[in-house]
Amino acid sequence: MMVGLDAEARAPDEAEVIPDTVRFGNDGVDYGPLAHWAGFHLRMAQIASFHAFAKESQEVDLNPGRFALLTLIDRNPGISQTALSKAYGRDKSTLTPALNDLKRRGLIARVRLARDRRSYHLTLTPAGRAMLKRLTECAVRHERKLERIIGAREKARFLRILAKIAFQVG
Amino acid sequence: MMVGLDAEARAPDEAEVIPDTVRFGNDGVDYGPLAHWAGFHLRMAQIASFHAFAKESQEVDLNPGRFALLTLIDRNPGISQTALSKAYGRDKSTLTPALNDLKRRGLIARVRLARDRRSYHLTLTPAGRAMLKRLTECAVRHERKLERIIGAREKARFLRILAKIAFQVG
Repeated sequence: MMVGLDAEARAPDEAEVIPDTVRFGNDGVDYGPLAHWAGFHLRMAQIASFHAFAKESQEVDLNPGRFALLTLIDRNPGISQTALSKAYGRDKSTLTPALNDLKRRGLIARVRLARDRRSYHLTLTPAGRAMLKRLTECAVRHERKLERIIGAREKARFLRILAKIAFQVG
Repeated sequence: MMVGLDAEARAPDEAEVIPDTVRFGNDGVDYGPLAHWAGFHLRMAQIASFHAFAKESQEVDLNPGRFALLTLIDRNPGISQTALSKAYGRDKSTLTPALNDLKRRGLIARVRLARDRRSYHLTLTPAGRAMLKRLTECAVRHERKLERIIGAREKARFLRILAKIAFQVG
């Protein structure tokens, strides 16, 4: 824990300098135009972040990609599959296998409501809430690691740019 | 083309203000802690960017995820599968199906070299170079769109943070 606190205390200073040496092309590989492209950087950061989260949560027997889904269903009980797929950035057909998996494992319940019989509405089961609690602990550790890399001063601006991309690039 | 130039000319002003309204939670969904987490923002931005690139390149009959692979092989002819998987942020086992697909389509060649018979070395075929040229045109259009969203002033700093995450989070 002390290591974590020390590193957090250092974060504001680190944020002052984002070293120029941390970039694609300084590792002996020629990245061509990719070295300057946001699309490629986003992809590489996301792959690395996902792998790190998977490692952080390896003792939990669930695809770490399901964490955001469980959180969204927990925070919005009764959410429709359509609203969930929109919030999750996936179309319904991509989401369905993931929801089937969560249902099979007894982590979510799908009900049809009298007021809207056309679509499923989703809630977490008690097992789903327990699973979310464990995954959230892993996510908090992972997020602390990301924050130390990003730097406390940079974080808000960095997140707003990412949100702008998420909402506007489509 | 004029549209692109106009938009690029506007970019420095837009970069001054990253509106606070572009964020998760302003769309009527409760994102809980995800609204403040870099891991989630990265993932959502990457999904949106990938979908936008897929749309931009839909006339090209190749998984847009192969674009970076073709670029890396083109820029580093004879690169080993091990070096490629490292540069691409994937382990060899994940990379192999993608390379098999590129080989089957006649876009890359795999050779064993006398100086290193243990691993495959990769080059683009003429068909591979033609495919890369078409995908690069799509990628340039996609990248311009991302640049307009990020803002010219923000881009270098934004990319350095993403590269730091890619190299340091693991």
